[in-house]
Amino acid sequence: MSAASETAGYRFNHTMIRVKDPQASIKFYTEILGMELLSHYKFDSFTLYFLAFDHSGGALTAREKKDSRFSREGVLELTHNHGTESDPSFSGYASGNTDPGRGFGHIAITVPDVAAACERFERMGVTFKKKMSEGSMKTIAFILDPDGYWIEIVPPSVVLGPGDE
Amino acid sequence: MSAASETAGYRFNHTMIRVKDPQASIKFYTEILGMELLSHYKFDSFTLYFLAFDHSGGALTAREKKDSRFSREGVLELTHNHGTESDPSFSGYASGNTDPGRGFGHIAITVPDVAAACERFERMGVTFKKKMSEGSMKTIAFILDPDGYWIEIVPPSVVLGPGDE
Repeated sequence: MSAASETAGYRFNHTMIRVKDPQASIKFYTEILGMELLSHYKFDSFTLYFLAFDHSGGALTAREKKDSRFSREGVLELTHNHGTESDPSFSGYASGNTDPGRGFGHIAITVPDVAAACERFERMGVTFKKKMSEGSMKTIAFILDPDGYWIEIVPPSVVLGPGDE
Repeated sequence: MSAASETAGYRFNHTMIRVKDPQASIKFYTEILGMELLSHYKFDSFTLYFLAFDHSGGALTAREKKDSRFSREGVLELTHNHGTESDPSFSGYASGNTDPGRGFGHIAITVPDVAAACERFERMGVTFKKKMSEGSMKTIAFILDPDGYWIEIVPPSVVLGPGDE
């Protein structure tokens, strides 16, 4: 069988990152970026939070949103190891973009209007890694989440360079 | 305005990870996991590869798939910094799951039947981080991609523990 038939129904469900302070992170991902908290679950030493954008126009119930956390695409899972938020010896998590620890790069959020989104982020005090005016790619920006993870802000269509039309 | 109105149309578009050898990674994500390569673009010192699952049942053209790379959800972006694949001094990328470099955790793929998927992965020689029989969560597995990034294999519905029904 081909991969196409053997992997039918496969989905890229979620991306997991660890966060120091879930209150700060959930505030950021819901109030700044507009995701919704689908569900959270507390284990003894850590809690998992599942967030995603609601594209249903409000048609989904809270139960349906929770049930979708392992079946839909575009889910962000935040892992909070209890205590990091108040531990003065905790030095924070690696963004993945510097040595040692380079590997993971970023997550990206598509927005209808990058300039309008960035103006709103600035008003809300978001930290920028790269404003639209900086660097060679003027159509995109990078902001930082509360842990310093990079979040690319992209329009729905990007031409990366010559020959990419 | 509420976040819901100001962030209407936002999507969690992609997750970017760096890879040492794009040939190995693309073979893994397409042949083992069943993703499709939507597009790639070569810059002077690095190349970007965009992959995703096709849920259209073959209805989308290659052009439409390429055009969706910055607008849809569930896209995986692989960054290949040229030369790493043949550089004996390159020590590899961090998975994000050990110190130093802890932060990013994993990506997750939803499959209709985890046991069947894992049997196929075993036949294809995939390295497991956690088989279904290991650990406390018997309904999921973790495999490793060619760079050692963790990939969670999950069913469409998971009960995390008591009270999570």
